Amino acid sequence: METSTSFQPEKNLRRKSAAAEKMKALVYHGPGKKSWEEKPLPTIIKPTDVIVKILKTTICGTDLHIMKGDVPEVTDGRILGHEGVGIIEEVGTAVSTFKRGDHVLISCITSCGKCDYCKKGMYSHCEDGGWVLGHLIDGTQAEYVRIPHADNSLYPIPAGADEEALVMLSDILPTGFECGVLNGQVKPGDTIAIVGSGPIGLAALLTAQFYSPAEIIMIDPDDNRLAVAKTFGATQTINNLSVNVVEKIKIMTDGRGVDTAIEAVGLPETFELCTAITGPGGHIANIGVHGKSAALHLETLWSQNITITTRLVDTVTTPMLLKTVRSQKLNPNKLITHRFRLDEILKAYDTFGNAANEKALKVILTS
Amino acid sequence: METSTSFQPEKNLRRKSAAAEKMKALVYHGPGKKSWEEKPLPTIIKPTDVIVKILKTTICGTDLHIMKGDVPEVTDGRILGHEGVGIIEEVGTAVSTFKRGDHVLISCITSCGKCDYCKKGMYSHCEDGGWVLGHLIDGTQAEYVRIPHADNSLYPIPAGADEEALVMLSDILPTGFECGVLNGQVKPGDTIAIVGSGPIGLAALLTAQFYSPAEIIMIDPDDNRLAVAKTFGATQTINNLSVNVVEKIKIMTDGRGVDTAIEAVGLPETFELCTAITGPGGHIANIGVHGKSAALHLETLWSQNITITTRLVDTVTTPMLLKTVRSQKLNPNKLITHRFRLDEILKAYDTFGNAANEKALKVILTS
Amino acid sequence: METSTSFQPEKNLRRKSAAAEKMKALVYHGPGKKSWEEKPLPTIIKPTDVIVKILKTTICGTDLHIMKGDVPEVTDGRILGHEGVGIIEEVGTAVSTFKRGDHVLISCITSCGKCDYCKKGMYSHCEDGGWVLGHLIDGTQAEYVRIPHADNSLYPIPAGADEEALVMLSDILPTGFECGVLNGQVKPGDTIAIVGSGPIGLAALLTAQFYSPAEIIMIDPDDNRLAVAKTFGATQTINNLSVNVVEKIKIMTDGRGVDTAIEAVGLPETFELCTAITGPGGHIANIGVHGKSAALHLETLWSQNITITTRLVDTVTTPMLLKTVRSQKLNPNKLITHRFRLDEILKAYDTFGNAANEKALKVILTS
Amino acid sequence: METSTSFQPEKNLRRKSAAAEKMKALVYHGPGKKSWEEKPLPTIIKPTDVIVKILKTTICGTDLHIMKGDVPEVTDGRILGHEGVGIIEEVGTAVSTFKRGDHVLISCITSCGKCDYCKKGMYSHCEDGGWVLGHLIDGTQAEYVRIPHADNSLYPIPAGADEEALVMLSDILPTGFECGVLNGQVKPGDTIAIVGSGPIGLAALLTAQFYSPAEIIMIDPDDNRLAVAKTFGATQTINNLSVNVVEKIKIMTDGRGVDTAIEAVGLPETFELCTAITGPGGHIANIGVHGKSAALHLETLWSQNITITTRLVDTVTTPMLLKTVRSQKLNPNKLITHRFRLDEILKAYDTFGNAANEKALKVILTS
Repeated sequence: METSTSFQPEKNLRRKSAAAEKMKALVYHGPGKKSWEEKPLPTIIKPTDVIVKILKTTICGTDLHIMKGDVPEVTDGRILGHEGVGIIEEVGTAVSTFKRGDHVLISCITSCGKCDYCKKGMYSHCEDGGWVLGHLIDGTQAEYVRIPHADNSLYPIPAGADEEALVMLSDILPTGFECGVLNGQVKPGDTIAIVGSGPIGLAALLTAQFYSPAEIIMIDPDDNRLAVAKTFGATQTINNLSVNVVEKIKIMTDGRGVDTAIEAVGLPETFELCTAITGPGGHIANIGVHGKSAALHLETLWSQNITITTRLVDTVTTPMLLKTVRSQKLNPNKLITHRFRLDEILKAYDTFGNAANEKALKVILTS
Repeated sequence: METSTSFQPEKNLRRKSAAAEKMKALVYHGPGKKSWEEKPLPTIIKPTDVIVKILKTTICGTDLHIMKGDVPEVTDGRILGHEGVGIIEEVGTAVSTFKRGDHVLISCITSCGKCDYCKKGMYSHCEDGGWVLGHLIDGTQAEYVRIPHADNSLYPIPAGADEEALVMLSDILPTGFECGVLNGQVKPGDTIAIVGSGPIGLAALLTAQFYSPAEIIMIDPDDNRLAVAKTFGATQTINNLSVNVVEKIKIMTDGRGVDTAIEAVGLPETFELCTAITGPGGHIANIGVHGKSAALHLETLWSQNITITTRLVDTVTTPMLLKTVRSQKLNPNKLITHRFRLDEILKAYDTFGNAANEKALKVILTS
Repeated sequence: METSTSFQPEKNLRRKSAAAEKMKALVYHGPGKKSWEEKPLPTIIKPTDVIVKILKTTICGTDLHIMKGDVPEVTDGRILGHEGVGIIEEVGTAVSTFKRGDHVLISCITSCGKCDYCKKGMYSHCEDGGWVLGHLIDGTQAEYVRIPHADNSLYPIPAGADEEALVMLSDILPTGFECGVLNGQVKPGDTIAIVGSGPIGLAALLTAQFYSPAEIIMIDPDDNRLAVAKTFGATQTINNLSVNVVEKIKIMTDGRGVDTAIEAVGLPETFELCTAITGPGGHIANIGVHGKSAALHLETLWSQNITITTRLVDTVTTPMLLKTVRSQKLNPNKLITHRFRLDEILKAYDTFGNAANEKALKVILTS
Repeated sequence: METSTSFQPEKNLRRKSAAAEKMKALVYHGPGKKSWEEKPLPTIIKPTDVIVKILKTTICGTDLHIMKGDVPEVTDGRILGHEGVGIIEEVGTAVSTFKRGDHVLISCITSCGKCDYCKKGMYSHCEDGGWVLGHLIDGTQAEYVRIPHADNSLYPIPAGADEEALVMLSDILPTGFECGVLNGQVKPGDTIAIVGSGPIGLAALLTAQFYSPAEIIMIDPDDNRLAVAKTFGATQTINNLSVNVVEKIKIMTDGRGVDTAIEAVGLPETFELCTAITGPGGHIANIGVHGKSAALHLETLWSQNITITTRLVDTVTTPMLLKTVRSQKLNPNKLITHRFRLDEILKAYDTFGNAANEKALKVILTS
């Protein structure tokens, strides 16, 4: 019987003595092919590494892109996943912030803390990191994961925290916040529009409210998602299948356009819609992952004093977001619609991959 | 008895008593057609107006666009011109800052000082102003001009100032500075590129040096213009006809790209070049007046943490620029290559319209 | 024939035909002396003036200072008051934004919109304005008031607005917001302290929540006021009579100190307390009107990377605040505890001057 | 066999085999007592350490303070010095940026790169660093020094750089720039005053010019130092012994006061002078190390919209400054007036301690 404390189960910390040194993981085998299979346990490679035992993880829209073959750097045999919370199993000799047994939040972005980009807070472009987990190195959809540059890439979880909620801080909430809200310079009293009411648009919606905009207009073709947006704080919703969005926004804003438009889809037409509904002096903040170019209508935009931004999330705001969760200014649980055991991950992929029908936002996988 | 002083010539101030009440002006008569002809003297229409006798004016690249028919809002009979210095002839009853006889710099942008945009410093979108001179109302290529909202749209010229130099502060220098340098967030130590070494690119080059960037790379197809850029402070030049600019910049920046790229041409290909040479975290500041859309390569840019800005000049920095001229941090005279009498304006248009051959930057017309 | 509408009562708009041309007003007659007496109706002096019939006004802590003789520029015979809403009675010839009958919010700060300070958004130091109402010219505690530079110093009130609530936007809310919250750079997740839980401290408390700080610690010697602060959104309160505030804050912040301390009292000891509780990199935002100097402990502060700001409210955020009221992000009514008729103003002064016992925050006077 | 190169002299790299393992260093032995004596060679303690052989170092005003006993944390036996350039001798196992033989610039501030303060760019308050060299651990006035957190606390020196000039980037130039110029928000066209024309005031003067202020007024009681300031770019100088500075500045600024005042002395009266000469909306940036409190005249300042900042240098701008040196926008050599061999350091202290008579700014010590 397990007498050890909840966060340091004997059987895990003793794994070294086990004969097999094996674990289970979700492995990519080329477009359309994945399996839940045995893989060797990860080991410390550099003194700044730690090994984390995964407690909870999730699936990202990006994982679906990988499965379609859209991210060719991901090669056969790669363990997917870049989100999660876990418990430190083993630490490299140069790790100073964490020790075995600590509960940690895993950032989707690895940061060395030393290069020019990291020093500027642009961890996304870290010269020895950035988005590598479940991409260029093995990821978090597994029983164990190796985290490089652990001191700068993990965050301590305070005792008593809701760890399920914190999984939303690995990627989706900092992405919505940094790429959408911060880059979009949302201010009190503003009128903002968010194009796309999927998980990432909803993450922008939740975190935009930190700055008390007057109006948040949510735009999506799915009435169910728009209804969810209403419960998350949208003040207005527009179904773009049934309404001319540009005309509608013109009316709503007395012909001025919105102060900030946040692109949370990743298609040329949704980006172009953002530029069409933004007023003079406004901001267009792109979050979407795009596969092709969009038309930038400089023939009208050149004189409109607009600002367009793109960004791969830096997760530089994770400490700030942790404080807002602790103080209940932000409730990430709203984003979680489905829960599975980690070994049910193939089923979880099916659910998440069929999000509209399943009314799925984010799924939680618990080991 | 007080005899007339140099800045209050009796004959001008007495014009009211003249029988004819006529003046000469450069008048647009549809695409390709203009003439130097008689027009009625302008009169005060609103209490916030003043009438200015033009001392010096110039021709803008935008005037050439108008002559081509590219700016359809400009109608037959319109007096062109939106730059100049002059002497106040008559003031409306609500004008408090200026009096008859004052020498003034005319801003190309009219600002009411009251609307939401003006209060935000975005005079370009003033609800009762913006770019109107030589566009929606009669302009400065004339002996006299009516200036609406004079208190907010003119700047006093200190005694002893070089008034020819100050004509460069009506439009071209604030445009290069605000749209290019400020929006491009040029910082000490930065590497910046300016695409286009015409007058507006050179205005950006001059004012970028306020912020001490380490490298200023000037890109243009005309070797003469690049040679001029060198004398204006460019640290490197690239002729884009003979060199692959993207490859060259990659080498010059150790593969990183520039911190800021300033677009000073107005073509899709030059804008696209700017996005191709800018590194992660960089800024693309558009100054060019574009006639068609450009391709925005979001399939690569989405993750590059870049910022793209557009702007119609607000001339909100004119007071700052006047201080830099007075303290000799900025020498606008460098931009002036040709001088004419005001009544030679048709010849001046020919010279300016044939800028490459004439090696013309800005022309000065003196009444 | 024009029948009276609800916002254009016949009797007011016809006042010109009245014989007397008199009104009632609260007049200062030197320290400790004031009366509710007859005064001539104000008239348009400059073309940018309007005359406003007061609908609602209030009393400010500053008015109490004036009554004590602390503001010597206020001379015998001056009508006090710099807050209120009203209805436009008459407009000068150069006023373009407003017309007779319009309902308007009066800013406590007069802005010409033309001078260098106004162009920078620093209306408080307007060269032909700033705080003049009820100070250097007659104010709003009267049946009518002349408002100079009306286009830049009044704000239109939308139909259906709660005009009583908007009186709080004349001074107290922009003061708490600009001097305290904006200057204090309050951010999501921050821990902030507000020293002083009177009306101005509470105004800072209400508007600080626009930025979702994690903790707002309210400090005051009056338990009643602290209890009010709790209902306004304070997460913690400290009675500084019974607790060592510096020690307590040290404990609450794990030894780090607060991110922002807002001084809302105006005494050396409360200012010095603010510098003592602020952590490295923090902000001290002064709102209080001080009568003497404070000690600035540079021997410890020199290396603490702190920022101290002072500010006379500019009311540059009034349009933003109007939007937050309209969208119900801000409820100014919370600040109103007592209501009187305008002709009961002497009684209102008694109540407001005895705020602690009366549990008074702001009083509303209705004409 | 490895033949020695210019940057890897055999005798240094082989020191491990030497019997003695001793070096010479400048050692503090209590107020007024120091000696150039033998000390053990430093060794790697943590995997993030390196050992640097000093090539060039200097003496700071702070070292003189330590010698007076003003910095009680410095204890008997401590090797002084926190500036210098050197060559890497030995690297810890977790150091990834540097290798043996690299030439490096030593920052006066040690940064772990991991703590909350470092992540915010506030290295001065690093939880495992900050100002420790020659303070809490042995410093750079020695033949060898141990540098903790080397990856984040050293900067690579490019081949061919003027290493003597770069010693000025260890402390004095980032201090003048960050604490004075950046915190003072110097802008093109501004009028700024620097109080104190010693080395640190001159460092602020040199780096203020990155932002092209119109006027830089230097204030000091020593005419020689003011003459130096003129050659460094000051546009005006005031000897405060012979002139009423407040009156003089009032005249020079048309009664407005300066935009930014930089305090580079560290006395109550010089700080108070800064607050007295700064205009509404202005900035007071403290650089001076203060020993006692100053009076902050809130009775006048409360309404002046000023900003006061303090800062211990973070050296976060060192990479930017390195670029400005490389591009010759900044010439640090101007600050160097005297040169000594490292073993002449006692003589160098005498010269630097008698700076006014010796007309000394910074001294260079070469090993």
